[in-house]
Amino acid sequence: MKHLENYVKAIPDFPKEGVLFRDVTGILESPEGFQLALDSTVGLLADVEFDLVAAPESRGFIFGAALADRFRTAFVPIRKPGKLPRETISETYELEYGRATLHMHTDAVKPGQRVVIVDDLLATGGTAMAAAKMVERLGGEVAKMVFPIELEGFGARAGLLKDYDVASLVKYPGK
Amino acid sequence: MKHLENYVKAIPDFPKEGVLFRDVTGILESPEGFQLALDSTVGLLADVEFDLVAAPESRGFIFGAALADRFRTAFVPIRKPGKLPRETISETYELEYGRATLHMHTDAVKPGQRVVIVDDLLATGGTAMAAAKMVERLGGEVAKMVFPIELEGFGARAGLLKDYDVASLVKYPGK
Repeated sequence: MKHLENYVKAIPDFPKEGVLFRDVTGILESPEGFQLALDSTVGLLADVEFDLVAAPESRGFIFGAALADRFRTAFVPIRKPGKLPRETISETYELEYGRATLHMHTDAVKPGQRVVIVDDLLATGGTAMAAAKMVERLGGEVAKMVFPIELEGFGARAGLLKDYDVASLVKYPGK
Repeated sequence: MKHLENYVKAIPDFPKEGVLFRDVTGILESPEGFQLALDSTVGLLADVEFDLVAAPESRGFIFGAALADRFRTAFVPIRKPGKLPRETISETYELEYGRATLHMHTDAVKPGQRVVIVDDLLATGGTAMAAAKMVERLGGEVAKMVFPIELEGFGARAGLLKDYDVASLVKYPGK
């Protein structure tokens, strides 16, 4: 069986010059790759008790929704401004250039619920941190954060996400 | 067991005045609702032979990825401009106000492959039609189009999508 790393494509200079983009669509576009990514993520969550899966749009939805289905939990979409139709809370966070804001419905997480946060790729951890803050503001607890791909060069585990249980499947030393 | 319709929330005046928004997050935020939607969609596809599931971002990813997992097929993300890192084809289509463009990787569908197109909601059918055109330009065939929610008032079945096999779970007579 191929390792998951073999399904990740490296695209030079995307989305801008000098960036080596780790392309998760190579996983998705192979039935074996997608199953391997999901089976392996299920393995990361084997001993974790949780009630909900939450994921930021758009690529986070792909892994998050499939995992919520596998564990038969609800799925909480975390979205860009103006997309969620009911009352939301939001978090704004710093990007390399500028800022981004994410929203979550205020009724999406109930006090005491344990939430797994899923995204396709861990870089700075800013997106996951914004998601975690919203979960906690609603009284929930972050059970674990899982990512098929991690770019270790950003130092999210020892930095921004140091208070969380973080796991990934394929780790690249750079940015 | 509750019918799927009971999980769909109706939000008046979203995203703009006069629109009654059918909110699919009510399905997602209930474990029973999400399972019911997926089980029922699997039922719609019971007699359909297909190789791939393709879905447009962002809400289409939620149902599309979970269905691709259930059928153990590959998942083809259909995305807005600038999001897919490799060579793409694109289709531009009319919206109520203005136009939108969607992209698909050129290697996502191989000639002869049968593709199920999934989105959360069928309205005018413009998005699904753009997806179908891209599938066909790559030599694929649209096996079926499935939607948890359909707004029949837009007339997509008899109109834009008349040449396709279309199925939905919850139908609203209006727009």
